[in-house]
Amino acid sequence: MVNTLKVGVVDTTFSRVDMSKFVIEEIVRLAPKAKIVRKTVPGIKDIPLAALQLLEDENCDGVITLGWVGPSLVDKLSYVVSSMALQLVMLRTKKRIIDVTIHEDEAKTEEELYRIAEDRARKHARNLIILLTAPEELTKFAGKGLRQGHPDVGPISPP
Amino acid sequence: MVNTLKVGVVDTTFSRVDMSKFVIEEIVRLAPKAKIVRKTVPGIKDIPLAALQLLEDENCDGVITLGWVGPSLVDKLSYVVSSMALQLVMLRTKKRIIDVTIHEDEAKTEEELYRIAEDRARKHARNLIILLTAPEELTKFAGKGLRQGHPDVGPISPP
Amino acid sequence: MVNTLKVGVVDTTFSRVDMSKFVIEEIVRLAPKAKIVRKTVPGIKDIPLAALQLLEDENCDGVITLGWVGPSLVDKLSYVVSSMALQLVMLRTKKRIIDVTIHEDEAKTEEELYRIAEDRARKHARNLIILLTAPEELTKFAGKGLRQGHPDVGPISPP
Amino acid sequence: MVNTLKVGVVDTTFSRVDMSKFVIEEIVRLAPKAKIVRKTVPGIKDIPLAALQLLEDENCDGVITLGWVGPSLVDKLSYVVSSMALQLVMLRTKKRIIDVTIHEDEAKTEEELYRIAEDRARKHARNLIILLTAPEELTKFAGKGLRQGHPDVGPISPP
Amino acid sequence: MVNTLKVGVVDTTFSRVDMSKFVIEEIVRLAPKAKIVRKTVPGIKDIPLAALQLLEDENCDGVITLGWVGPSLVDKLSYVVSSMALQLVMLRTKKRIIDVTIHEDEAKTEEELYRIAEDRARKHARNLIILLTAPEELTKFAGKGLRQGHPDVGPISPP
Repeated sequence: MVNTLKVGVVDTTFSRVDMSKFVIEEIVRLAPKAKIVRKTVPGIKDIPLAALQLLEDENCDGVITLGWVGPSLVDKLSYVVSSMALQLVMLRTKKRIIDVTIHEDEAKTEEELYRIAEDRARKHARNLIILLTAPEELTKFAGKGLRQGHPDVGPISPP
Repeated sequence: MVNTLKVGVVDTTFSRVDMSKFVIEEIVRLAPKAKIVRKTVPGIKDIPLAALQLLEDENCDGVITLGWVGPSLVDKLSYVVSSMALQLVMLRTKKRIIDVTIHEDEAKTEEELYRIAEDRARKHARNLIILLTAPEELTKFAGKGLRQGHPDVGPISPP
Repeated sequence: MVNTLKVGVVDTTFSRVDMSKFVIEEIVRLAPKAKIVRKTVPGIKDIPLAALQLLEDENCDGVITLGWVGPSLVDKLSYVVSSMALQLVMLRTKKRIIDVTIHEDEAKTEEELYRIAEDRARKHARNLIILLTAPEELTKFAGKGLRQGHPDVGPISPP
Repeated sequence: MVNTLKVGVVDTTFSRVDMSKFVIEEIVRLAPKAKIVRKTVPGIKDIPLAALQLLEDENCDGVITLGWVGPSLVDKLSYVVSSMALQLVMLRTKKRIIDVTIHEDEAKTEEELYRIAEDRARKHARNLIILLTAPEELTKFAGKGLRQGHPDVGPISPP
Repeated sequence: MVNTLKVGVVDTTFSRVDMSKFVIEEIVRLAPKAKIVRKTVPGIKDIPLAALQLLEDENCDGVITLGWVGPSLVDKLSYVVSSMALQLVMLRTKKRIIDVTIHEDEAKTEEELYRIAEDRARKHARNLIILLTAPEELTKFAGKGLRQGHPDVGPISPP
């Protein structure tokens, strides 16, 4: 099944890290015969249409979107708009989109932001492949406090 | 009627408490012959599609979703997006989803957060079963100040 | 026309005041032959599906929903989600829903909150009956600064 | 074309200024043979359904809605809900709605608020008539810093 | 392909800079045979219907919208509403809209605001033409930290 998988990747020119590189590495590693189709758009508000085109016109099985969001209120509102539209695309196509976003204000240094972006992109690429090929495998991690962009925090021990 | 019930449960790997455990215990207790289908996804934005798949493809009668939400503004905005999409799924399928969320900033200690999660998950699992099997039973509690995650606060006495 | 009216009432177990009592009193007073169908759900996010069921499955002519909203940001965001879904139900069914909400932070004492809840519920029940039976009667109050939950503030005098 | 125009006006009993009076005066002045259909509802969240009814059932060519919004966060959130639903009505009917709102916190005195309401209502009534009868006329004002409710601020001079 | 391109431009009378001038210059330069259709509306909430009309009725291949947003919370909420509606138009028509907005509070002087508006309008006009004629060309700029309205910030160097 994995062999015939077709995965879409949407990234932006606004982003300051080429997250698709990490995503593609992970897909190739986990699903070496998967076909990958990539679309680049200017910014987050341009992502949902690209995701729809990949799912409906390119017939991708799932899509990972790689958004980069500035620190201002307007940036956060644009994030809401983009993420809501991605939900609409998922409900319309009934296909999985993993909506990855990096927020410029979640790190204090560029170095830290880079590391967050790489870690989050890689882990969510793996999540997408699992969801598309063996979704039941995630259940053993339910409630385990997994994090993308940071180390896992783990589950809370019962009191 | 209860015997043939099919209930969906959606949880996340982001969550720090395995709330499905409590939910499943309650369902088994209240509706022992119900069939339970569980899906685990990475985080809250991945929940609505899973709920739709359970309701439309797995033909569940209702779904309970178990979200875990961080403390930042971005987390709260992601919560809005996820919850709005769950509304769309309900209106499309005309089936009930109980949208349970735990917010990391609603407790000061991990212990308290765990207790909130367990209490809210159990009580809302019961709510779902009631809504699916005997919804008219809730009317006697209308305006009674019931709470999930905390003790009930009760009704306000007429002045 | 009033005789055959069918009105839906949706309330919650989260609410701390049984507002349906006031609503039903007003409906009985203004439209004594109206049929009333009531649904109780846990909280505000559960209201829109109940309203849809009343309008589409129970064939109600209109619905009044009685939400109770906590003071936190998450509560306000849940209010947005619920209210937006109610708009979707109205546009889909082309039937009227009066979306009544009480916010715990709009009063300083429980007594005041109770009075707000009663006043708002009664006045909006009357609004719903007017909208369903003689909507043109509202035009004489256009711009008159009517309030529900508080005394009317009246119109601003032209400068 | 103007002669056969049918224009809908939606206002509220919550408003403290009868803005429809100004709107109707402007419509009569600019399009004397236009037919005007008016609907009054309690508050802003009741407006979108009324607008839909005017556009679909009364077959209006366009609608102007006259909302009045309180100063609290809940009021602003209700504004979002109402305005978003008006967008849905426009996209569904493919007809123009001018969504006028007055916010109680945008003036310090009642007198000033009245003047804002009158000015905004009149100017937007004119905008609606232009959009319905000769939309290309607005292009000469593109980028001109026109304001409704206040004097125009004019364009910014190129540096 | 470029010769037969049809591009829609939507701007507002609220804007304080005639951004269409810059947009049209860029389109003429990059796609000299493209047909340009322009619509001017009062403000941002009027833009989505105009964009829909251009895409569906005028059969444009893509649209650029030029919004101008005030500094208040209400202005930002109106921005959310307008942008969300533009997403709906994109998903419905499956055609590209570039949603350009200038926020009055993103600059300290009128001069700076003018420069931002010109830069953002020109660069996004180019983005639209690229997306409509050779979308694969954007991929070489993925993750490069391009900005519209300001100089590009460039990519973050790997740590």
